[in-house]
Amino acid sequence: MNVADRVWHRCRLATLAPQREGIGVVEDGLIAARDGVIVYAGPRPDAPAGLGPAQWTDCHDRWITPGLVDCHTHLVYGGNRAEEFELRLAGASYKEIARRGGGILSTVRATRAASEDELVSGAQRRLDALIAEGVTTVEIKSGYGLELATERRQLRAARRLSIDNPITVRTSFLGAHALPPERAGDSSAYIADVCDMIPRLAAEGLVDAVDAFCETIAFSADETARVFARASDCNLPVKLHADQLSNLGGAALAARFGALSADHLEYADEAGIAAMSNAGSVAVVLPGAYYFLREKQAPPIELMRTHRVPIALATDSNPGSSPLTSLLLTMNMGATLFRLTVDECLAAVTREAARALGLFDEIGSLEASKRCDLAIWDIERPAELVYRIGFNPLHARVWRGQIT
Amino acid sequence: MNVADRVWHRCRLATLAPQREGIGVVEDGLIAARDGVIVYAGPRPDAPAGLGPAQWTDCHDRWITPGLVDCHTHLVYGGNRAEEFELRLAGASYKEIARRGGGILSTVRATRAASEDELVSGAQRRLDALIAEGVTTVEIKSGYGLELATERRQLRAARRLSIDNPITVRTSFLGAHALPPERAGDSSAYIADVCDMIPRLAAEGLVDAVDAFCETIAFSADETARVFARASDCNLPVKLHADQLSNLGGAALAARFGALSADHLEYADEAGIAAMSNAGSVAVVLPGAYYFLREKQAPPIELMRTHRVPIALATDSNPGSSPLTSLLLTMNMGATLFRLTVDECLAAVTREAARALGLFDEIGSLEASKRCDLAIWDIERPAELVYRIGFNPLHARVWRGQIT
Ligand SMILES: [Zn+2]
Ligand SMILES: [Zn+2]
Repeated sequence: MNVADRVWHRCRLATLAPQREGIGVVEDGLIAARDGVIVYAGPRPDAPAGLGPAQWTDCHDRWITPGLVDCHTHLVYGGNRAEEFELRLAGASYKEIARRGGGILSTVRATRAASEDELVSGAQRRLDALIAEGVTTVEIKSGYGLELATERRQLRAARRLSIDNPITVRTSFLGAHALPPERAGDSSAYIADVCDMIPRLAAEGLVDAVDAFCETIAFSADETARVFARASDCNLPVKLHADQLSNLGGAALAARFGALSADHLEYADEAGIAAMSNAGSVAVVLPGAYYFLREKQAPPIELMRTHRVPIALATDSNPGSSPLTSLLLTMNMGATLFRLTVDECLAAVTREAARALGLFDEIGSLEASKRCDLAIWDIERPAELVYRIGFNPLHARVWRGQIT
Repeated sequence: MNVADRVWHRCRLATLAPQREGIGVVEDGLIAARDGVIVYAGPRPDAPAGLGPAQWTDCHDRWITPGLVDCHTHLVYGGNRAEEFELRLAGASYKEIARRGGGILSTVRATRAASEDELVSGAQRRLDALIAEGVTTVEIKSGYGLELATERRQLRAARRLSIDNPITVRTSFLGAHALPPERAGDSSAYIADVCDMIPRLAAEGLVDAVDAFCETIAFSADETARVFARASDCNLPVKLHADQLSNLGGAALAARFGALSADHLEYADEAGIAAMSNAGSVAVVLPGAYYFLREKQAPPIELMRTHRVPIALATDSNPGSSPLTSLLLTMNMGATLFRLTVDECLAAVTREAARALGLFDEIGSLEASKRCDLAIWDIERPAELVYRIGFNPLHARVWRGQIT
């Protein structure tokens, strides 16, 4: 058997391997893969012998990073909120917009009305935009059904997208996203509904993690804890929309349940960040929503650094607060709006995003035994991926060893 | 002779025709063109007879807008400033960056060192990004040479791009962009240099307009007036980088010289805006630079509305303060950061951007006798072009009647 079936050479690598410094640069690099798995990534002179029979690709000094990972999206939904956006800019009040059927419940209505095929084809265009930028793994949440059938349909659509496209999809069940109209005034009853849905959807193989929205306008810490307890019973990892608009102790709550990640975190305090550090939870920051909602309080990046909490970045792609489908632009926003460094931004959409999905043993760095998911870039230095705005220098994308 | 050689039908139009309301929507539209010029754009039932022999395109209810116009860019330059961006995020002070050769003079050095071919090929990738979004006219400034030979080379590169690509290019001579190192401490002498360059470069057919940067860190109002007086002698229209970081009365100065536009305008006051209104100058607002520089004071949009000053939006694509190559994203920034309405944003990259280049008799709206420059979009409503972030729904692009 051959050592490798594919080799990329004459390339510069940002390996993101934790044992290397910074983003793990290798100037004269080589990557060898067999059956879609990396067998070697590192300096060319140290490559194993016997690579000869493989298919070789000369990268002409281009840079290779791990395929990008968008670890927080709501990519599957019905309709869009362009009209609401237009009305708001024209001066309509929130009340008027609600009266005209706007807000999250308009997306719930449109999602409930959409067939699985419609959900898939709507999301496909957004997924195409991510794929065009070198994204090889994407997380997709439910949460616009708020009842079993539609939540299931959203999750099934997400699974379909992973079959139809050269990309890895991880699903999160976000039943606890908002209170459905038929449970208005009785959030406790709806939380019971959500707790019922978890084992059913999990039994159908549709749920990789359980998420919730802990916020004054959504669910309390106690309600969130009920959802997480049920997830734990089902052996499902949890994540949390935490401390975005106010401090409800979401970061600490997520940590208490050993969450993969707590996301947003604008209002998280030091106790919450310290708890995340102890729990090994990743901080997923979402500058697209911060930008679109014109928030003023950035997440406590300095506390995350002090407590060595890994920082990931994601698009939070969703119709209401972040209609964003560019992970490259998300990196620029992370730097411009949150003052993340270039190295932090690059790690945030590769290594740390993989950790936020519990997948760092499989993806997120260029190391032997990882999936061969690569993004090959027409750039002179990795900082260009963060610095440019609205520019895509992707040369080629490799998913599980295949150029796609 | 046939009435038309090309017809687009089953389309919805945002004509931007001034005699129609708002963005000039026509629901059941038709566009007919002959020899690259629109002969009819309006309701299908009112179309002229005799279109039969033309080549017909069924648009399947897609939307058509005028081809987009990016009316303020510095697209041609050497090098990039990704390293400076990286250093700044890593905590380097302005002093350290200057010591390491950063700032605008680093771009001047790289531009002086670049051949015309290198300038063309560097700009080509940025132009490709604009073209991919339906831009059919782009303005390109010089201003990174600061001496005759390099300013000429930049302008020649801009002309070359218009030959190599299906796009209309308008050039602006921006010799008065910064003080070159060899004139340090003697801006008056450099202004004399600039005044010498104007007629020479104009005689070579390289200059469509003259621009300057009036700012405490660049040139005074008096120095700017010297440049503008020389431009007027040469019958060249003027534009101005005005009131971006402080109020030097740039808007009023531009108006005094009947400028096509005054650009940036964050610190412009009511007297300046009123003067622009009287002079018919367009306000070009540049949210990319505002975003990238993390400015806090937005331009006085409400004053522009009150005084009926047309508002254009542009990328300001440049390596130092706006490494942005997406006019769609610029619209979103105009709405999100400056609170422009959807209709204002759409007019700002079509009709008003054309006015800012003195080209509204040729482009910027879908009307008979205009150039047939079209952008055809896969959208349900025009607001989607402004609402989405990092998403390109362009279906096809037509420049002078040709699908490109
Ligand atoms: Zn979210
Ligand atoms: Zn400029």
